[in-house]
Amino acid sequence: MQTMAVIGTGLIGTSVALAAAGQGVSVYLSDRDRAAARTAAALGAGRAEDPPGPVDLAVLAVPPSRIAEVLIAAQERGLARAYTDVASVKAGPERAVLARAPEPSRYVGGHPLAGRERSGPLAARAELFRGRPWALTPHRLTSRAALDRGLELAELCGAAPVVMRGREHDEVVALTSHVPHLLASVMAARLRDGPAGVPLLAGQGLRDVTRIAAGDPRLWSDILRSNASAMAGVVKELRADLARVAAALDVLAEGDGFARGGGFAEEDGFAEDHGGGHDQGVRTLEDLLARGVAGLAGLPRPGAGPPVAEAGLRILVPDRPGELARLLGAVAALGIAVDDVAVEAAEESGLRVRVPVPTADAERIGAKLGADGWDRAPAESMPVG
Amino acid sequence: MQTMAVIGTGLIGTSVALAAAGQGVSVYLSDRDRAAARTAAALGAGRAEDPPGPVDLAVLAVPPSRIAEVLIAAQERGLARAYTDVASVKAGPERAVLARAPEPSRYVGGHPLAGRERSGPLAARAELFRGRPWALTPHRLTSRAALDRGLELAELCGAAPVVMRGREHDEVVALTSHVPHLLASVMAARLRDGPAGVPLLAGQGLRDVTRIAAGDPRLWSDILRSNASAMAGVVKELRADLARVAAALDVLAEGDGFARGGGFAEEDGFAEDHGGGHDQGVRTLEDLLARGVAGLAGLPRPGAGPPVAEAGLRILVPDRPGELARLLGAVAALGIAVDDVAVEAAEESGLRVRVPVPTADAERIGAKLGADGWDRAPAESMPVG
Repeated sequence: MQTMAVIGTGLIGTSVALAAAGQGVSVYLSDRDRAAARTAAALGAGRAEDPPGPVDLAVLAVPPSRIAEVLIAAQERGLARAYTDVASVKAGPERAVLARAPEPSRYVGGHPLAGRERSGPLAARAELFRGRPWALTPHRLTSRAALDRGLELAELCGAAPVVMRGREHDEVVALTSHVPHLLASVMAARLRDGPAGVPLLAGQGLRDVTRIAAGDPRLWSDILRSNASAMAGVVKELRADLARVAAALDVLAEGDGFARGGGFAEEDGFAEDHGGGHDQGVRTLEDLLARGVAGLAGLPRPGAGPPVAEAGLRILVPDRPGELARLLGAVAALGIAVDDVAVEAAEESGLRVRVPVPTADAERIGAKLGADGWDRAPAESMPVG
Repeated sequence: MQTMAVIGTGLIGTSVALAAAGQGVSVYLSDRDRAAARTAAALGAGRAEDPPGPVDLAVLAVPPSRIAEVLIAAQERGLARAYTDVASVKAGPERAVLARAPEPSRYVGGHPLAGRERSGPLAARAELFRGRPWALTPHRLTSRAALDRGLELAELCGAAPVVMRGREHDEVVALTSHVPHLLASVMAARLRDGPAGVPLLAGQGLRDVTRIAAGDPRLWSDILRSNASAMAGVVKELRADLARVAAALDVLAEGDGFARGGGFAEEDGFAEDHGGGHDQGVRTLEDLLARGVAGLAGLPRPGAGPPVAEAGLRILVPDRPGELARLLGAVAALGIAVDDVAVEAAEESGLRVRVPVPTADAERIGAKLGADGWDRAPAESMPVG
């Protein structure tokens, strides 16, 4: 790719332009707000002028509802040989393009999964997309050449292209991006009228849950309404879960064991002074929380590679203060994640500790720990995690 | 403080013990799970044995529903001169203590606002509480001596004590911790049955919104049900917001401008092909998103100090590719956050850029930039941000 036009020099458009310009592509920038295009140019993202002839690829970095009109105008003046966009909704714009664009075959939908809470060209970074997924959604008329340009753009930006249908994309991002945004906003909105102590006790958990609610309301309202039908189904399921939880909380608030000042059962240490509605309420909460944990298990761990065959080294740690801390230090020094170390049993002679290590390194690491005086049992094969 | 007992050597109890032991306090550890207490001891958190006589402070690191019974048992055997706990719910345990404990005056509620998704003694860290808030909730009978011990503990752990009433605490954490946890779980639960592409397009936003849902379901169900009445009110308001949004999404899904392949209004670039219900739906979304942004504005920025009087240096950046990037580099090299730099206007001669700097440094920084060849206007006083 030699030449590119970027229409819309906000955060994403300018970041794409910076990445492409950094790879030697000649980039031509435009924006309805001329100061934004000049700002992007002054950042080194390209030239704030029209290209002298058709470019290899035009990137439409405008809100979902504007893609079709901007594409039509661009195709009418012969701006580019291929077109893509960066909007986080794909099916609606695709329908509009198929219905109305002069050359729909030259268009492939695109969506880099990256962003920041800040917007505008000054927030742009050439490395914004590095290592992130970049969805490409060819429609039934998309030409091979247009898809290839989309793939080339993703790679130019250091992203990992993922090809899927527009409708499938929209259902996925409703779940992974748009409904989470809505929940973050609903939660953040409640903070406004909260008690005075809220800023005093706000911690990292709240900050994480609400972080994405800081996005630009006008842009996000465009995104959310453009994916309204895919979101509506997810929101309906969420509301059903919340209704169950609300009913459980009402029952638990009434029958709270504290208020009556007595009747805690001793056998397992949990309060049991209540009837069947209370038990049912507790089960509703536990069930939801467990389903949440299960849902997270399906997400890839950030930065995690493919699973590695693992062996568990067993070390017997003497019951002396600080001995376990000393082992963790030795393990960390060998480059092993101490977060996965576990105490399997407390035996007469000490704590039996399992240190998971890649099978290929088990012998070497075991010998090293043995040489350092740690008392160890032979490595056992463990199932791949 | 010379001596301390910690009952419950999970993540929080062991972290408190590690912090205290690190400051020279003699710590005595116990847990229903004897292996957990021995693990904490082997980490250097203290001794897994009963103290020889009454200790200065006993820290009850057990779930909310168990605090009263554990306190009563400890007071009956004269374990300590003062007692506190670390549970994230305060009003219910306090009522139970007032109703049933032999010496309620020796107890002050406590809640360090810190945690990790991992649980158990091996996840403990002495520095877990450093710089974090630590709520202390004296009740009407709490003695000055008991409150002082609680304050001392928070300081020993490097935390910032915040004294408030138990009921007020519970209302605040319902909003800042418990309802966010519930929403994270509700969202994460939906991922389990999502389309196959979910792991491919899951990004940092989703991870942040759902992160806290990874907490131990049994412990969290105890916490949530112990604060059911404070949560119920917040959940009710959330549900009302979600109901409005769901209705808006239904209208927007029906009337989506894409489907009809036409009628985009040109004057402001947003789709306008719709009736009043559509407009109302868009307003509902925009209103919620804007309220979310407003709610976040009330949270302290992490690591932010008190506001500093600010001056805005004005620099004229020539319209040449890369010039603005060069200015940002120069500004960053002077230790100024480039995130707050803004382009105020695009003038004939170039971009007028505002660089906010502390008033006290404005002259020095302006002179430095001027010496480097940047064309600048005199500094203006700006309102404190």
